[in-house]
Amino acid sequence: MEAGVADEFDVIVIGAGPAGENVVDRAVRGGLTAAIVEDRLAGGECSYWACVPSKALLRPVDLAGEVARVPGLSLGEVDVAKVLARRDEAVSNFDDAGQVRWIESVPAEFVRGRGRLDGPRRVRVTTADGGERVLTARQAVVLATGSTAVVPPVPGLAEASPWTSHEVTATTAVPERLVVLGGGVVACEMAQAMHGLGTRQTTVLVRGGRLLNRMEPFAGDLLAESFADSGIDVRTHTDLVRVERPEPGGKVTAHLSDGPPLEADELLVATGRRAATRDLGLGSVGLPDDAPVEVDDSMRATAIADGWLYAVGDVNGRVLLTHMGKYQARVCGDVIAARARGDELPTMRDLAGGYGAPQVVFTDPQVCAVGRTEAVARAEGFRVRVVDYDMGAVTGAYLLGDGYRGKARAVVDEDRKVLLGVTFVSPGAAELLHAATIAVTAEVPLDRLWHAVPSFPTVSEIWLRLLEAYGL
Amino acid sequence: MEAGVADEFDVIVIGAGPAGENVVDRAVRGGLTAAIVEDRLAGGECSYWACVPSKALLRPVDLAGEVARVPGLSLGEVDVAKVLARRDEAVSNFDDAGQVRWIESVPAEFVRGRGRLDGPRRVRVTTADGGERVLTARQAVVLATGSTAVVPPVPGLAEASPWTSHEVTATTAVPERLVVLGGGVVACEMAQAMHGLGTRQTTVLVRGGRLLNRMEPFAGDLLAESFADSGIDVRTHTDLVRVERPEPGGKVTAHLSDGPPLEADELLVATGRRAATRDLGLGSVGLPDDAPVEVDDSMRATAIADGWLYAVGDVNGRVLLTHMGKYQARVCGDVIAARARGDELPTMRDLAGGYGAPQVVFTDPQVCAVGRTEAVARAEGFRVRVVDYDMGAVTGAYLLGDGYRGKARAVVDEDRKVLLGVTFVSPGAAELLHAATIAVTAEVPLDRLWHAVPSFPTVSEIWLRLLEAYGL
Repeated sequence: MEAGVADEFDVIVIGAGPAGENVVDRAVRGGLTAAIVEDRLAGGECSYWACVPSKALLRPVDLAGEVARVPGLSLGEVDVAKVLARRDEAVSNFDDAGQVRWIESVPAEFVRGRGRLDGPRRVRVTTADGGERVLTARQAVVLATGSTAVVPPVPGLAEASPWTSHEVTATTAVPERLVVLGGGVVACEMAQAMHGLGTRQTTVLVRGGRLLNRMEPFAGDLLAESFADSGIDVRTHTDLVRVERPEPGGKVTAHLSDGPPLEADELLVATGRRAATRDLGLGSVGLPDDAPVEVDDSMRATAIADGWLYAVGDVNGRVLLTHMGKYQARVCGDVIAARARGDELPTMRDLAGGYGAPQVVFTDPQVCAVGRTEAVARAEGFRVRVVDYDMGAVTGAYLLGDGYRGKARAVVDEDRKVLLGVTFVSPGAAELLHAATIAVTAEVPLDRLWHAVPSFPTVSEIWLRLLEAYGL
Repeated sequence: MEAGVADEFDVIVIGAGPAGENVVDRAVRGGLTAAIVEDRLAGGECSYWACVPSKALLRPVDLAGEVARVPGLSLGEVDVAKVLARRDEAVSNFDDAGQVRWIESVPAEFVRGRGRLDGPRRVRVTTADGGERVLTARQAVVLATGSTAVVPPVPGLAEASPWTSHEVTATTAVPERLVVLGGGVVACEMAQAMHGLGTRQTTVLVRGGRLLNRMEPFAGDLLAESFADSGIDVRTHTDLVRVERPEPGGKVTAHLSDGPPLEADELLVATGRRAATRDLGLGSVGLPDDAPVEVDDSMRATAIADGWLYAVGDVNGRVLLTHMGKYQARVCGDVIAARARGDELPTMRDLAGGYGAPQVVFTDPQVCAVGRTEAVARAEGFRVRVVDYDMGAVTGAYLLGDGYRGKARAVVDEDRKVLLGVTFVSPGAAELLHAATIAVTAEVPLDRLWHAVPSFPTVSEIWLRLLEAYGL
């Protein structure tokens, strides 16, 4: 069947997660027509099986920690059923009708089915009932298929059907005993969520020496202290070497590189993600299907001659964070619309990525960072000065509760006197980060930051302390 | 007795609150010697009877509100005795030994007694035992005496010995029935603190039509809704006309401009503050003692010929906020040291005040603002565009709890495309403010702010929504 006129759009997006949705929104706002293809739920991984449900599970755990630090308050048992019910509400009970309505209101056409490239500017969609539809793009095809969890080739692991982020965030019960493989963001957040909601024995297996090993070293150290205080067992320098799970869904035995085997009720694999490029028809346009789709700062695939192919979000492998995918999508949608009109602006570029994306880890303490770590800044050849400050020593932090611990680091470019990176590790630090994101991204000079007065008594007074410690 | 060499200092500061302490710190860091005179507690009003204890009282109330919005969590009765005990700890049990040690470690000389100007560059100190000491300043005398609560001339009010911020923050018991006179920051914070800690009948008398009338109008409106929900009775357009309190500390009867008299157990007056200039010897250098000491942007008193007198904090009447007083003090200490060396820099000025000081009201919802309100910006002749956004519609806010309500406003200078002011009103907004303070103070252009990506799912995504709503 050939595509009719009705199947021709200015822009076709494959993948209706937050990135894909934002491309459509911006492109249509820019005067173009668009279709968006999705074979699972409109709204994407983030809305149903990642950021949103994980934060719904973490919020009560986080708040319980805050309450425990405030004399005079006392919390009853956490009602896990209610927490899970609100998680279900947060993911719209896995119903994407609201998201589909939003897409149609843009307006854009929502096409449910599996989308694959089928040569230049063509997308072949296979529907659940086996039907096919071929869409043609006048301006651009945008890949926004995200990423999938990697399950490492440990003997018996795949056969044990372990949890990934997908299953743990959607769980309907909290396991008694949980083994977590990995020490990154998903591993840390979900270990703490499950432990806080009732897991009695939580063991985190970390191949390296530290949790959150891409952040400043003190981030993982402070988090490990908190894990130890709450009874989460972190085993560094420990590999999973073999897994046994005789009964599907039954007990799991994890054999380790060190120490006796661990028995658990569930096993969560959180060792990384790969770009979702497989079975996407990349071969039909001459691209490999086992690597992220490389793009330039306008999100255009560098290997496609005519420049009709774009990729945003995890699938381009730039930075695997929802908000950066959405940002790339805004850039991409604006660029496509501008190129169609012939008035592209130089500001329509991914500038933020080059500074180092902001990220919040919603653990207790929360770990927030933007820009470069000290190690990265030095490796890139900057003349760096590092300023550290104990966040617990800020009056505003003391007033939030007893035993508030935390640390802040500013990485200063000594040649230009601007911030290259900022890290905050402390309870409730999430909303502190955006100030740093503005300062780093807009390259606000330190002697101008000196006149931005933090309100007393907020934790944001850490800004004053960092600048004082720097010598301003 | 004449001053000996030991009583000569480069800088003499009268008033050891946060502002005075910061002057001393910066001046000594700049190579000067300093003495600081205080007749009450080193650390000042803020540390014992204002910001610090008020936040210690508000924190459990605020957190109880957060918990109530999270399904699955339940809070027991607030243990008021423990809350008051932690307040006592926060104010160091009204013992300033730690503060005095800090001053001596600067190092600076701490002189306990009442300091008064006694002609140019001279300060006469009267000690508690009636002794006198005359100090002479080689470079500067700095006034940092703060402000005192105003008790309006309502018949019977002064005789009823009402509470001011001083007494309510230091209270050892929560009154059953409380009448609050005023609708500003102290009135709102303390009405909510007492009500949250057990006051059964809390009535707020507001002369005008709205709470927090210097902020954007929606701030007072949202706070009034929250007060109504929690049972605090706000009476707008209502004056206190007469007070009766036959027994000291006994029942109070408040006669109003409208409606029947109110009976209460305590009455809090929070109708404003005046610069603490009385009995300070201002007459000895030709200044009036019933007005703030007017200063230039270097904090130097404009009316003193030789330029040896400075004033920082509330006493200069610029802006009555602790953090701005501290900021002025940093400017002042640096200026005095630089002038002594002869290398004053043009950046050593109060630049922040001109943009509009940041302020956080620690109520539920928290009210945070920096820069100009829409009304002020328009009155000052800016070409203004206002962008509003419902903070409850941000995913990160929804994830914090049910019924999260809030509103944000950005006031844009359409000629320069920079932010003139930002207001956030929502639960837990305090730490959101500093991003706005940087954006306003550093005049970061909107199209640069567009590249500062807020992390998902934080409440800071309000920045993205405001910029989108603006059309970026």
